[in-house]
Amino acid sequence: MKLAFTLEYDGTNFSGFQRQKNALTVQEHLETAIEEITGTKLTINYSGRTDAGVHALSQVFDFETDIKRSEENWIKGINSNLPKTIFVKDVFEMPQNFDSRFSAIERRYSYVIYNSKNKPLFFDGFSHWVTNKLDTDKMESQLRMFLGEHNFTSFRSSGCNSKNPIKNISYVELKTFENFIIITIAANAFLQNMIRIMVGTILDIAKNEIDLTIKEILDKQDRQYAGKTAPAKGLFFLGPKYKDENNINSYVPNLFDRLKN
Amino acid sequence: MKLAFTLEYDGTNFSGFQRQKNALTVQEHLETAIEEITGTKLTINYSGRTDAGVHALSQVFDFETDIKRSEENWIKGINSNLPKTIFVKDVFEMPQNFDSRFSAIERRYSYVIYNSKNKPLFFDGFSHWVTNKLDTDKMESQLRMFLGEHNFTSFRSSGCNSKNPIKNISYVELKTFENFIIITIAANAFLQNMIRIMVGTILDIAKNEIDLTIKEILDKQDRQYAGKTAPAKGLFFLGPKYKDENNINSYVPNLFDRLKN
Repeated sequence: MKLAFTLEYDGTNFSGFQRQKNALTVQEHLETAIEEITGTKLTINYSGRTDAGVHALSQVFDFETDIKRSEENWIKGINSNLPKTIFVKDVFEMPQNFDSRFSAIERRYSYVIYNSKNKPLFFDGFSHWVTNKLDTDKMESQLRMFLGEHNFTSFRSSGCNSKNPIKNISYVELKTFENFIIITIAANAFLQNMIRIMVGTILDIAKNEIDLTIKEILDKQDRQYAGKTAPAKGLFFLGPKYKDENNINSYVPNLFDRLKN
Repeated sequence: MKLAFTLEYDGTNFSGFQRQKNALTVQEHLETAIEEITGTKLTINYSGRTDAGVHALSQVFDFETDIKRSEENWIKGINSNLPKTIFVKDVFEMPQNFDSRFSAIERRYSYVIYNSKNKPLFFDGFSHWVTNKLDTDKMESQLRMFLGEHNFTSFRSSGCNSKNPIKNISYVELKTFENFIIITIAANAFLQNMIRIMVGTILDIAKNEIDLTIKEILDKQDRQYAGKTAPAKGLFFLGPKYKDENNINSYVPNLFDRLKN
């Protein structure tokens, strides 16, 4: 039996999702919590790594098991062994060929900017503080240049070892709420640090620290023309999307939906 | 010259406002930060203590000084010596007879409840998680019974050594926003733990764990009839009010205003 779970976490105190030696990760906490109730060692599949400090409103992971428990029992059992900054939300029984990573057709992220002269204070762990007055119309028009299929060589970290830099951006959105500017981006897949460099570059253009447009920087295919990598703490993984037949409620359309859960 | 400042802090990691031996307090941080730029030891006056873990959107403090600096200079100077969870917002030159504590005619607090089966996660440090479905109409009608002048002996901690248990509640409000229930209360002054016991009692009544009404519990004048003390982390000090002639923007009318600052 293949089970898929949706998972939420505050990434502040974790060295990212993926298991590492000598560092505390979400994956390690999860696998330990599951082993605690199944009594068997396991390795989970998951929809995507997140960097240290990045948050998730809907990470998806799956594993196979012969153990029969009610849905409630799975969720309560795993949660009771997790720290309070990680929370399993839901469980779905999936077809045998489902894989959290390879079955995903789209991934969606939101990036939160706190645009004010005053400190974010209560939101410090969940936003990137920018004191310059930002022109959101200019930011949005730059953001729109990312739409469609492009070579993202300019927007990947130097350590990124993905073979294919061509990604397809299927959705972009910029919304403001009081002092917050929220940029949402969906694509089939992302390169290492790609969203953080995309957001950092839009910010550098908005601050007039870069004279090129996003289109021009894409065309350069060279990381040095893009802007700074925006900090991890403003980034939220909203989740992957799967083909409809998988019938799994696997992503949160926008950050504000979180307040209703 | 008497200067008054407004101050915001995330109380999570402080042992309250008031200076203590062997514990980290907001007052100690502040006085050290001010001494750093004035070069003189000082003790500040402040509008009211807050318990360990309680937050403030507008604490007010004052001190006398002969030093002339611009307003911006005072604020930047102090803030540069404060941890990132404390922030001086504004400064006002006040008449000589002004005192942050004794000149205050009203104090206002909001208490945040997160009402959901799911963990608050990102809001854990700033709300009290209640999983029982709460009847907010019932809560509001109980809350209204606090309005006016009452003896609050039932709603003070056993360690409270205030001489006068009679306080005048001038304003109450219950608002909901998605899963949040926000209770706002203003009074001339409060007893120790008074708001936390008021909120905890309303919750215990809403959960049918207490059969008495707020009016009946006030009349008992006995702490044992009231409910549990709600946790500190859900409580926000919105600030004191002074007589109009003091002309100081000293309180935040409601929590959501914080998002605009």
